[in-house]
Amino acid sequence: MAENKIKVSIIGATGYVGAELVHGFVNHENVELVHLTSRSFKGQKFSDIYPQYRGVCDIECSDIEYEQVAKDSDLVITALPHGVSSVTVPLLLENGAKVIDHSGDFRYKNLQAYEKSYKLEHPHPELLSSAVYGLPEFYRDELKTANLVANPGCYPTCSLIALAPFLKQGLIDTDSIIIDAVSGVSGAGRKADLAYSFCETDEAFKPYGVVGHRHTSEIKEQCDFLSGTDTKVTFTPHLAPFKRGMLATIYVRPSEKLKSMDVSNEVINKIYSDFYAGEEFVRVLPLKTYPDVKAVNGSNYIEVNGCYDPETGLVKLFSAQDNLGKGAALQAIQAFNCMFGLPETAGLKNIIRGV
Amino acid sequence: MAENKIKVSIIGATGYVGAELVHGFVNHENVELVHLTSRSFKGQKFSDIYPQYRGVCDIECSDIEYEQVAKDSDLVITALPHGVSSVTVPLLLENGAKVIDHSGDFRYKNLQAYEKSYKLEHPHPELLSSAVYGLPEFYRDELKTANLVANPGCYPTCSLIALAPFLKQGLIDTDSIIIDAVSGVSGAGRKADLAYSFCETDEAFKPYGVVGHRHTSEIKEQCDFLSGTDTKVTFTPHLAPFKRGMLATIYVRPSEKLKSMDVSNEVINKIYSDFYAGEEFVRVLPLKTYPDVKAVNGSNYIEVNGCYDPETGLVKLFSAQDNLGKGAALQAIQAFNCMFGLPETAGLKNIIRGV
Amino acid sequence: MAENKIKVSIIGATGYVGAELVHGFVNHENVELVHLTSRSFKGQKFSDIYPQYRGVCDIECSDIEYEQVAKDSDLVITALPHGVSSVTVPLLLENGAKVIDHSGDFRYKNLQAYEKSYKLEHPHPELLSSAVYGLPEFYRDELKTANLVANPGCYPTCSLIALAPFLKQGLIDTDSIIIDAVSGVSGAGRKADLAYSFCETDEAFKPYGVVGHRHTSEIKEQCDFLSGTDTKVTFTPHLAPFKRGMLATIYVRPSEKLKSMDVSNEVINKIYSDFYAGEEFVRVLPLKTYPDVKAVNGSNYIEVNGCYDPETGLVKLFSAQDNLGKGAALQAIQAFNCMFGLPETAGLKNIIRGV
Amino acid sequence: MAENKIKVSIIGATGYVGAELVHGFVNHENVELVHLTSRSFKGQKFSDIYPQYRGVCDIECSDIEYEQVAKDSDLVITALPHGVSSVTVPLLLENGAKVIDHSGDFRYKNLQAYEKSYKLEHPHPELLSSAVYGLPEFYRDELKTANLVANPGCYPTCSLIALAPFLKQGLIDTDSIIIDAVSGVSGAGRKADLAYSFCETDEAFKPYGVVGHRHTSEIKEQCDFLSGTDTKVTFTPHLAPFKRGMLATIYVRPSEKLKSMDVSNEVINKIYSDFYAGEEFVRVLPLKTYPDVKAVNGSNYIEVNGCYDPETGLVKLFSAQDNLGKGAALQAIQAFNCMFGLPETAGLKNIIRGV
Repeated sequence: MAENKIKVSIIGATGYVGAELVHGFVNHENVELVHLTSRSFKGQKFSDIYPQYRGVCDIECSDIEYEQVAKDSDLVITALPHGVSSVTVPLLLENGAKVIDHSGDFRYKNLQAYEKSYKLEHPHPELLSSAVYGLPEFYRDELKTANLVANPGCYPTCSLIALAPFLKQGLIDTDSIIIDAVSGVSGAGRKADLAYSFCETDEAFKPYGVVGHRHTSEIKEQCDFLSGTDTKVTFTPHLAPFKRGMLATIYVRPSEKLKSMDVSNEVINKIYSDFYAGEEFVRVLPLKTYPDVKAVNGSNYIEVNGCYDPETGLVKLFSAQDNLGKGAALQAIQAFNCMFGLPETAGLKNIIRGV
Repeated sequence: MAENKIKVSIIGATGYVGAELVHGFVNHENVELVHLTSRSFKGQKFSDIYPQYRGVCDIECSDIEYEQVAKDSDLVITALPHGVSSVTVPLLLENGAKVIDHSGDFRYKNLQAYEKSYKLEHPHPELLSSAVYGLPEFYRDELKTANLVANPGCYPTCSLIALAPFLKQGLIDTDSIIIDAVSGVSGAGRKADLAYSFCETDEAFKPYGVVGHRHTSEIKEQCDFLSGTDTKVTFTPHLAPFKRGMLATIYVRPSEKLKSMDVSNEVINKIYSDFYAGEEFVRVLPLKTYPDVKAVNGSNYIEVNGCYDPETGLVKLFSAQDNLGKGAALQAIQAFNCMFGLPETAGLKNIIRGV
Repeated sequence: MAENKIKVSIIGATGYVGAELVHGFVNHENVELVHLTSRSFKGQKFSDIYPQYRGVCDIECSDIEYEQVAKDSDLVITALPHGVSSVTVPLLLENGAKVIDHSGDFRYKNLQAYEKSYKLEHPHPELLSSAVYGLPEFYRDELKTANLVANPGCYPTCSLIALAPFLKQGLIDTDSIIIDAVSGVSGAGRKADLAYSFCETDEAFKPYGVVGHRHTSEIKEQCDFLSGTDTKVTFTPHLAPFKRGMLATIYVRPSEKLKSMDVSNEVINKIYSDFYAGEEFVRVLPLKTYPDVKAVNGSNYIEVNGCYDPETGLVKLFSAQDNLGKGAALQAIQAFNCMFGLPETAGLKNIIRGV
Repeated sequence: MAENKIKVSIIGATGYVGAELVHGFVNHENVELVHLTSRSFKGQKFSDIYPQYRGVCDIECSDIEYEQVAKDSDLVITALPHGVSSVTVPLLLENGAKVIDHSGDFRYKNLQAYEKSYKLEHPHPELLSSAVYGLPEFYRDELKTANLVANPGCYPTCSLIALAPFLKQGLIDTDSIIIDAVSGVSGAGRKADLAYSFCETDEAFKPYGVVGHRHTSEIKEQCDFLSGTDTKVTFTPHLAPFKRGMLATIYVRPSEKLKSMDVSNEVINKIYSDFYAGEEFVRVLPLKTYPDVKAVNGSNYIEVNGCYDPETGLVKLFSAQDNLGKGAALQAIQAFNCMFGLPETAGLKNIIRGV
């Protein structure tokens, strides 16, 4: 049976993104997990590190050579730090595997933007042009033939899904896009760090990376592509005391075109509904209902809606996703489905949480 | 396709137990959900009340006659208050449906114990003898032919799975079983109640129902059955600031038989491993690893382990489950699988949560 | 001894704001609490409702006539809903008490703005001109002689402390002030409401009142006063899963004046330091350190800082306070100190929380 | 002014216990804080590490010689690990300071019990006999003349306050005392440890140290002293997802003496009321009201009550305290008040938290 399945390996399987990839793939009937690599937990079962998975995924973590991982797999997903991915991914590609990478290393077309944001020289800039930005809603066709997919950042996914209908259709001024966003603690990764301890995080709320957070340039580049102009993006992330989830509140000015449409809550809602008709994972909420991270917890869904403030003439756009779901691992599985000709919802539709 | 599926309806579908039943059944490929009834939310879509399910379960809640619900369904699951179930369930049975009931009304064989604990006269005591107590690990065979299943209480499930190997094999004194247990807030149900508001519940921890909690007599009756003696059970529940989950810490004295086995952590662990060999949903943890509600969150799994205190000669048993999972809705689905000849894990094995 | 103390009564003492007033006043050596009124809890001790205060404040709650409350008190603090305060406060004033009111009823000078925001006709508009807006940092002198103080809203306090130095000195464009803010759950008050239950609130985060929230017009009016112009204010509140605390992230454009000062993080920090020099409760944070609700939990402190985004030319301002502290009850005590000629820090300086 | 104050220094001031000591002492008008020592944060202000205290306690942390700390102080409080205290404390005493120590090193009279529990050889066993166990409710007189006070462990304080009336008066069997207890996360201290990170701790609940937790032998020794017999104590701690707080649920058998008193909830309540009459910090709750960690959050109060289970003949005792308050730092201040002839409530009575 397994021989008909697509062989997938995960490099860096024991971080939160890696674990969420495992979560998705054990529910995916077309996939066989081959290698789970982890330097820290070599020789331990995945379910020793994440006991939720006892009896569900008891694969032993290994640190076998990356070349071998690639040879044994149809797809390798890398959950590695930036700067490490840029060296590792070419090796995997050379050894015949397709790759979805979770770092920032292959998300940019503009090399300078990457090097400025990440303060690194890119060792393989030649791969940037062929790497596909893994947002299926925008790059579905490119994904079908991609060998290398750069899984988008969590904040970029959340922001771009909210902004795209307006940017693509010239409905907003592109010189003042303000994105105020909030992430759950899992966004910081799985690590021993006092700043993310329960006693320091619970009953706390604060901004961070207030100027020049790396995701700013990633969002901007995609906004440029979506609008065909040079956009200006202001972005502020905040850390909130919940495990998973992300919400973006976006402030934009309607363009003359949108003004001429008699901008209103109804018009904004219809723009979303029309643009995302047929998209399985983008939930355009009913009029006057706004996104809540609770409603997308644990899933690949993203919610959007917007409103018009007649007092100030501003438009507010809102989106909510799970930072580990649509914001990371589950979106990677959506992209994987595109890459391998599977229904885009395979293994994903019923991954939700109730209470 | 749907005509081959088993038709299931849920009465009281919008409480937390009802919603968790929906959660399980939308992941169950052998099931077609027919009616979701709700007095409070009649005419609204299930996903209007639980927006997590937009696009996943958009069935409209109704308040159609219970007779009709029964006629349209192979199985009806009732998530009704005690005292209401005892009147409703007979009506459903008469109209041809099998029933799994979530109240305390059909859990007892001893009518007096029920009436004393619930302070109600039972209108249909004749049903008590044929009702099957829905713990598949103990009553698997009876479930196969049951028309009426009484889904066990959350605390009883958690306590009994931990105690059963010791009670059945005469390994502990039955005159002093002390169960100290903790539940998440969802155990109180979905309702507007100041006591369960965020500001009153977060950073709080307290005992409740400290004498005569109803689940005490339910646990005692099953302990009597398991041991074949008249047991004495002391039980104290506590409310903890998490949504889902339940942990029991149980203090018992080894019997002469257990003492003669050179009781130790290893012996206790082996008793569990032997007794629950082959049980898919009972996780006997490795030696010196103890249950954590985090590891069973959202799932039908229950974890057990125990230890021996050489200073005092007491044995401690531990178990952890999700109060809405193995403690309520997902265990009902496990029982449903038994009732309808399906593999016991159908629709359940991969319902887990990672981070 | 008590005869030298200032007699204070609280109307509506058992809500969260009322309770926080009690908290502050039992620590205030110049104050004797006379009456705590509560319709819901008449005849019960305050410490029966808030058991934290057993042995600290065991005053019996009463529902005695408001006239009598006023006659027995030097100051009455009202924690009543808007529309109720506007009728009650005049009665208290007539009977000789000074009043600090927590509703929106006396916060506006512009009657139309109030009536539009609150959708009420004001029964005593003649009181609006003499009522003092209870922000001591701006209206310290007026408070000294005030008989009626309108305690500011929580969001307005948080926003205005952050904006004031820039508005007063012409440093920002006044036609596009964007305030994105977050509140803890206690902001919704003490009540049985499913929306604020633990299971619905924990692991949730969402915007609310996204257009036309009442505090918008209150903020705007004070921005007008501070700047001497007609300002445009966009405001979006969010609900976050913590009990207490509020954070505002504010986006503004530097005016020509600020641009000419070579706007930078350092310049913004100095503007704050200079403006709030000597203010005991406004903490201007060190350069590149930003407010966190954790650091002001339980106290009357408010933290501010800001930064400049050279990529977009925008200035971001941040402030954090406790919504029940500086945002409500403790600020009322600060205003009380002004009204009665006490040191502004009396009873307040050491009300803080550690871990 | 300061010259009339008692000079207090804290060694290890930046852990959670140290910080709570600072919290208490800045509210204590008879105390001048002299040195706050911290190896990790030498040269930083206390308020840089705990920004809550900006403007309240800006003392610079130092690592000056312990001899000098002792010479400059009337009292030195040590918040050091066990094994370190046993070496440091004698040095402080030799240099003329009185000492309150927070480790386990001086809590035992029985050297063997200490060395077995802590797996250490004690370098200064000669100090054990003169060290006073810092539970003011039991050792008030001894504290008046003590030079060295061993501040009790958090679990021991919680357990002993609940048990003492029964042990001292021969009201319970001493051969089977079962203590089931729960602590908030701050009990683990301030450190970077994955196990206490938000994502691993929230929505989790588990036992730990299930056999042989060090506090077991400390509790047992004091139970022996209180009862005058050789007691048997079974103890199980659990970790719960709140920052601060501790609850003990204790199961005991009534002795013949208690049985002859017609044991009932009322009788148990009266035993507590009589025993703790006049104790400022022990709150005996009203009949049928049971302790909640919420009600003692942030304070030096401890709540107790109990009940009788007529079905099994067992007595349950409950107590709740703040693990950093009565369970650690604030109890140390209560002991300090005794040592220096101050009213026992000095600086402590109004340290409470509302919402």
